[in-house]
Amino acid sequence: MKIALIGHRGHWGYVLKDLARLPEVEVVAVSGGGDPTEPMAEALRKHYSGSFALYEDYKQMLAEVECDLVMVDGPFHQHAEMCVECLKYNRHVFCEKPIALTLEDLEKIETAYDNAAPGTRISSMVGLRTEPAFHAAYRAVSSGAIGKVQMVNARKSYKLGQRRDFFKKRETYGGTIPWVGSHALDWILWFSGSRFETVSAFHTDAENRDHGDLEMTCAVMCRMENGIIGTASIDYWRPQTAPTHGDDQVRVAGTDGVIEVAHGKCTLINAAGVREIELAPDRGIFYDFVRGILDGTPGIVSSEETFELTRACLAARDDADANRAE
Amino acid sequence: MKIALIGHRGHWGYVLKDLARLPEVEVVAVSGGGDPTEPMAEALRKHYSGSFALYEDYKQMLAEVECDLVMVDGPFHQHAEMCVECLKYNRHVFCEKPIALTLEDLEKIETAYDNAAPGTRISSMVGLRTEPAFHAAYRAVSSGAIGKVQMVNARKSYKLGQRRDFFKKRETYGGTIPWVGSHALDWILWFSGSRFETVSAFHTDAENRDHGDLEMTCAVMCRMENGIIGTASIDYWRPQTAPTHGDDQVRVAGTDGVIEVAHGKCTLINAAGVREIELAPDRGIFYDFVRGILDGTPGIVSSEETFELTRACLAARDDADANRAE
Repeated sequence: MKIALIGHRGHWGYVLKDLARLPEVEVVAVSGGGDPTEPMAEALRKHYSGSFALYEDYKQMLAEVECDLVMVDGPFHQHAEMCVECLKYNRHVFCEKPIALTLEDLEKIETAYDNAAPGTRISSMVGLRTEPAFHAAYRAVSSGAIGKVQMVNARKSYKLGQRRDFFKKRETYGGTIPWVGSHALDWILWFSGSRFETVSAFHTDAENRDHGDLEMTCAVMCRMENGIIGTASIDYWRPQTAPTHGDDQVRVAGTDGVIEVAHGKCTLINAAGVREIELAPDRGIFYDFVRGILDGTPGIVSSEETFELTRACLAARDDADANRAE
Repeated sequence: MKIALIGHRGHWGYVLKDLARLPEVEVVAVSGGGDPTEPMAEALRKHYSGSFALYEDYKQMLAEVECDLVMVDGPFHQHAEMCVECLKYNRHVFCEKPIALTLEDLEKIETAYDNAAPGTRISSMVGLRTEPAFHAAYRAVSSGAIGKVQMVNARKSYKLGQRRDFFKKRETYGGTIPWVGSHALDWILWFSGSRFETVSAFHTDAENRDHGDLEMTCAVMCRMENGIIGTASIDYWRPQTAPTHGDDQVRVAGTDGVIEVAHGKCTLINAAGVREIELAPDRGIFYDFVRGILDGTPGIVSSEETFELTRACLAARDDADANRAE
């Protein structure tokens, strides 16, 4: 499988991390996607010994280079046009989340996807699905450990640190609900196994330490089409002294038990009592995407879920905008 | 201080527990408040050695007995009329939460309160405010340990067990958001130090194991007048095998740190690092109410907070009704 890479703004590390376990994958070309390409190539060389072409212009790269899959991690506000361009050439797309910053841009990707060759896949980098504790929780829930799921509570809390300038403008950042909250809403989507029926949200940029438009504090509440209720708390209030960058937690309550992921552990309470669940091996979200294509299996994230998640995040953000205090 | 007791449906144990530490308090009369009075008197005698009158009719008791304070713990749907009757006689009222099951009934109490002698107090039994871990968290937040509060996340999860019939009808139960969720919304009110600006909610009675109208799963999201955002997850999904009846948790995020109460412990992360906070002594919510009156100090819960909390719970429940899936 030949792949090309565009951009290095976000989590392209998922690709770097999994390359060693994917001998079938050959990186054929790299473009900074508007940012300088050489530093990206340099970082790649630490993980990949093959030779690849360098392009400053990602469109030229897509036009000239024959490949099967493209990773998109350019400027957030260009994810959508980059995805559309990849789909034009029928390339599978592994894109940083959110794949679009507006509902209009999302529609453009969906149209391009509908027009692409059947079997073309697109997935956003919802890397926490393959993290050991979350993956273990999902396996347990899938195997019926908590009965029928009724509620999903998600928490994402990050350290703010000092963010680059593009985080400070809505046009180039997209908002904290889509950026940080994508994972939280993805857990609700994933564990509920249902589409979103309705989402509502609050967010505020209060006390954001000179970070422009960036929202520090967000809450999302949703009901899924199958009736499951979800909540998500999303913020940048994790203190710098905390042991990890992110406080990622999910709690899933079902008719026969409750499962919780917190601090990298997974705890199940059901009729058998309280116990810690053995962690799943770290599958890797990029590894899973590639394996799905190579093996003709569904993979952990579907294209439909990628669209549904993006739509829910943008709808929640837009609702939070509409609900802003006057 | 002379006190009278009405009813034993809910948490009148708060009174029993604190009597020994309140030698100033004399129980002068007891009424089952519609339920049989003798079993209540019997339970009281285990905690209190004085003599007291027994009344089946609580109105007759209020008319005949001279006292300073009345505890109200009758049928949930009669809390309001009982409070009104107590306030007519200018008695301080210590009432099970929620003090009313409808906004109309709440207004009647507020009118009675406005017409009562100045200084008359009413408090609902928000007993978790004086629980060691929650009280410790509040003290730490008040002393500035997390800076300016930005967000409050609350969780209440109970074991369902087999509930009595009055839990199965909205008219006699009031709903899970007011009953279980009162504590969660109270933490948001308490830690934010602000009135509710807007509340929205979902709830569902799905999978309630033949419990009629009883909602098993609820979510509430709110913004306070000072801009603080709150979320509450409220459910009856705590497994019977869990070590405690309730999974009571609150997380408060502020500009300088995050504090969390979970599993009876209180953990603070701020510039000084991560540490467990020493628990506060168990003050007792009834003890605090009585001491406030005797000592002429404000006490932990004000009458205004009692009204505000009840209003928010009922507004959230009504919003959840309006948001029900069709």
